[in-house]
Amino acid sequence: MKLLEERIKKDGTVRDGNVLKVDNFLNHQMDMELFQEMGKEWKKLFADKPINKILTIEASGIAIAAIAAQYFDVPVVFAKKAQSINIAGEVYQTKIESFTHKRTYDVIVSKKFIGPEDHILIIDDFLANGCALLGLIDIVEQAGATIEGIGIAIEKGFQQGGKIIRDKGYDLQSLAIIDSMNENKVVFREQ
Amino acid sequence: MKLLEERIKKDGTVRDGNVLKVDNFLNHQMDMELFQEMGKEWKKLFADKPINKILTIEASGIAIAAIAAQYFDVPVVFAKKAQSINIAGEVYQTKIESFTHKRTYDVIVSKKFIGPEDHILIIDDFLANGCALLGLIDIVEQAGATIEGIGIAIEKGFQQGGKIIRDKGYDLQSLAIIDSMNENKVVFREQ
Repeated sequence: MKLLEERIKKDGTVRDGNVLKVDNFLNHQMDMELFQEMGKEWKKLFADKPINKILTIEASGIAIAAIAAQYFDVPVVFAKKAQSINIAGEVYQTKIESFTHKRTYDVIVSKKFIGPEDHILIIDDFLANGCALLGLIDIVEQAGATIEGIGIAIEKGFQQGGKIIRDKGYDLQSLAIIDSMNENKVVFREQ
Repeated sequence: MKLLEERIKKDGTVRDGNVLKVDNFLNHQMDMELFQEMGKEWKKLFADKPINKILTIEASGIAIAAIAAQYFDVPVVFAKKAQSINIAGEVYQTKIESFTHKRTYDVIVSKKFIGPEDHILIIDDFLANGCALLGLIDIVEQAGATIEGIGIAIEKGFQQGGKIIRDKGYDLQSLAIIDSMNENKVVFREQ
């Protein structure tokens, strides 16, 4: 998606350790006009899918998922990072390793909100090693629901997550895939 | 706001300890059509204010703020709950006590995204004792920005937060104010 690629070039900054800072428009301060265009793009890409619910994960996926959901006319469920779990039986639960924060989260979704009848679109802001996404996929599979597609804003194509997810057969649509980056240049994959 | 009050009556449940569960439409599964109507209502209530940015706090305020921001044509900044802080100088920082989770959070906002030139609308899903809101107000005041108004979805009018905030002179607009509640009945304040 050209609009997102151009915005990353204009406002993104690359830091040591393959960190891409996009906190001025994507995941701290957030540009709703950009999110609307992203939502429309996913609607085009998943136009033929019988999606009835969007699943994302707190915190930075929520706004992107919420804006996108308007174009699908569906509700959003967000997976919660739990401090401690003592509500066994009522929730789907998985573990997600965060390399950014160097810790493992328990992540939960109430069983009330996803079931075998659901056709889910998963939305998140970033895909790098794929840990968060694999956790969300695990939750949808526990629920017996169908994953109709996965929409990612920015994929770090030089990390393994995208390949792992595509090799599993999921319809993964990343709006910008970065093949390489350094302080001076960000190279996007042709799509 | 009648639509929200009716929805609380229909889908909310009251639990022991003055807990109102609205996780099927507000803060776990989220209804975008309802959020759109809430956004339009705040736009009406704050129509004459020169708002150029919305501030909220992760996680459950984010979707409400994002949808509302579309009616104001402004970006959203969300305050982050930090595990540990070692980026002094770059962020505004405050402490928020959570009675729900029985702990105190450090909450941060990058100094890049709020400054003296900003006219802020604060948006959040719940107002009870007011701790989260006082934390957000503290951040805006550290930045030297102007608070043009505060929009809350559900205020627990039988707790002290609303009175504290209004006594400070802020233009606080809660779309539903609950004066009392039990398992059988929720009583809303006339507005």
